[in-house]
Amino acid sequence: MNNTDIQPDITEIKNSRIDQVDFSNLQFGKVNADHMMYCDYIDGEWQTPKIVPYGPMEIEPSAKVFHYGQAVFEGMKAFKDENDQVWLFRPEQNFERINKSSKRLAIPEFPEDYFFASLKKLLELDKDWVKKGEGNSLYIRPFVIATENGVSASESDRYRFMIITCPAQAYYNKPIKVIFAQEYSRAADGGVGYAKAAGNYGAQFYPTKLAKAKGLDQIIWTDASSHEYLEEAGTMNIFFRVGDKLLTAPTNDRILDGVTRKSIIQLAKDNDIEVVVEKVSVKEIVNAAKSGELKEIFGAGTAATVVRVEGFEYDDVYHDLPIVDEPYGTFFKKSLQDIQYNRVEDPHGWTVKAF
Amino acid sequence: MNNTDIQPDITEIKNSRIDQVDFSNLQFGKVNADHMMYCDYIDGEWQTPKIVPYGPMEIEPSAKVFHYGQAVFEGMKAFKDENDQVWLFRPEQNFERINKSSKRLAIPEFPEDYFFASLKKLLELDKDWVKKGEGNSLYIRPFVIATENGVSASESDRYRFMIITCPAQAYYNKPIKVIFAQEYSRAADGGVGYAKAAGNYGAQFYPTKLAKAKGLDQIIWTDASSHEYLEEAGTMNIFFRVGDKLLTAPTNDRILDGVTRKSIIQLAKDNDIEVVVEKVSVKEIVNAAKSGELKEIFGAGTAATVVRVEGFEYDDVYHDLPIVDEPYGTFFKKSLQDIQYNRVEDPHGWTVKAF
Ligand SMILES: Cc1ncc(COP(=O)(O)O)c(C=O)c1O
Ligand SMILES: Cc1ncc(COP(=O)(O)O)c(C=O)c1O
Repeated sequence: MNNTDIQPDITEIKNSRIDQVDFSNLQFGKVNADHMMYCDYIDGEWQTPKIVPYGPMEIEPSAKVFHYGQAVFEGMKAFKDENDQVWLFRPEQNFERINKSSKRLAIPEFPEDYFFASLKKLLELDKDWVKKGEGNSLYIRPFVIATENGVSASESDRYRFMIITCPAQAYYNKPIKVIFAQEYSRAADGGVGYAKAAGNYGAQFYPTKLAKAKGLDQIIWTDASSHEYLEEAGTMNIFFRVGDKLLTAPTNDRILDGVTRKSIIQLAKDNDIEVVVEKVSVKEIVNAAKSGELKEIFGAGTAATVVRVEGFEYDDVYHDLPIVDEPYGTFFKKSLQDIQYNRVEDPHGWTVKAF
Repeated sequence: MNNTDIQPDITEIKNSRIDQVDFSNLQFGKVNADHMMYCDYIDGEWQTPKIVPYGPMEIEPSAKVFHYGQAVFEGMKAFKDENDQVWLFRPEQNFERINKSSKRLAIPEFPEDYFFASLKKLLELDKDWVKKGEGNSLYIRPFVIATENGVSASESDRYRFMIITCPAQAYYNKPIKVIFAQEYSRAADGGVGYAKAAGNYGAQFYPTKLAKAKGLDQIIWTDASSHEYLEEAGTMNIFFRVGDKLLTAPTNDRILDGVTRKSIIQLAKDNDIEVVVEKVSVKEIVNAAKSGELKEIFGAGTAATVVRVEGFEYDDVYHDLPIVDEPYGTFFKKSLQDIQYNRVEDPHGWTVKAF
């Protein structure tokens, strides 16, 4: 990571909470490691980042984040290898993306050296929270919230950038059933879908609840105007294998430009798998399911890495997907994890030592 | 208001801050009255509402509201008449709407008696913060935030319903210049535009900033799919007067069903003004501006009541609007305020005594 002169102010915990945690039985996102980072934007400037024990903070009820959802976030992971070294996966992508999200939400961008100096220090302090072993990681959640007090509907003049972390096991351990969206939608053309804007996620909870009531796990969002093209899932990009070709939607202003997605596209190229990055029509996928040409659907994202879709519902019909030999999904998941856990060579220089 | 058995727990302030406030020089939303209400949803139930001195609260950085924008709000006003009585304007509309918003955001609905019993008590305690005189009011901001700790992207199991209030003077005191949206958009079909969801507002700050940099005050949003139809402004519905007809878009799942809008439609009917509630095309309005048939555009919302648009930009051309004799906008503003301040008869029973 970058060398930098900025150093966060550190207040270390007195007593670690680590002994109270059952690492073999973690609910995703519920337990936080000992420390967190915060950095306030005041009078047009980011102040010195502070690392302090994880815990509640004081905030006024009139803070703009509560009223106007002026907030963005990121999701990344630290992995521990067999030699107890801690690695990040393409962290510069997350750094660039949070600033892209911030820009769209009228939030001031965060300086690169502040980000990496704080992250590095935070991981060093909490390195015991990063556990070895397949599927284990420390989930890292950078986020920014609007903290100006005042309920007028305009951008805040104060912000807080924070990083909190949570030890995590594999996110989805079983294949999921999905539904292709026909009524609700996730993002508008000209909207904020490409940003990790807080409001994009809360807006999905209700349609997802309806899907769950039908026995389905997640929604594959389609374009809001026509519902004819498959775009992405709530927290994952989505791939379709038709015959031996791998299809995925091009990114646009409604779709998050996922790090896992772009890494899989690269790995496919490295391994002579044909990838077609073009609009994926619902009709084409439904027909391929009927004809048996649709071999796989899988989601790709930091939290889940790769998750197999076992079937989808569309137009009230549920389509089972076959179980194929040597699935692409399994191959990409293993290839990514081999790189993330530093078990193989890393030809693209994706992994970065955390400290 | 409804009689009710539920009574909020009250902790009164020791010393009012009211003497420190310059009521003739208020910035909208910046000053809060002495008390606030909060009510937590825990284990599937809304607990007893509490009224306490306004001030900061403790909340964990992992609370879902910060990450997923699972939050909704309302905006309403209390007015004081010449006899020092305090009035609300169609408060049942705001109550119903916050629950409609909550439903779309997968937030549990709030009980009617809890809402009105708390609001009533809050206004009674802070009645000195409601000032008499044209344009003066106490702005009331009910809102709900997701307070479960944990960064998994699913709906919260804890919430906090709050009411804070701010003394307010007239919101916009001068006419505004607007731009018709051609690139950015506010809401998707099948999205959350019809809800007062926090994320809808933060998403508008950046495009609005761009508009401001061009010397324009606000954006009139068009439909996201085609940008051919005029829908609403950021915090106001919008009316067009072409000849003697009043046009406004019908509500749909992208547009907020405004209380001011529906009151103006009723007042227009009461006063034999022809109202056309149909899709309003950009082309039609631009042509009417060119031919001189476009007499007025005005925005309508609780914060602003009615605000005159003095001109609009579209396709890089700025169109000035004429100043007409006896504008509809002025008439509706006066009619509404006469009712709100209890200066005239209220044939539709819109005003409700606050306590
Ligand atoms: C909407 C959305 N799509 C896709 C992804 C996957 O992106 P990444 O692979 O960078 O985690 C995420 C999660 O980060 C997401 O929130
Ligand atoms: C998006 C939007 N449109 C319209 C309005 C006007 O609604 P009302 O008249 O109920 O205040 C508001 C403000 O409340 C709003 O936020």
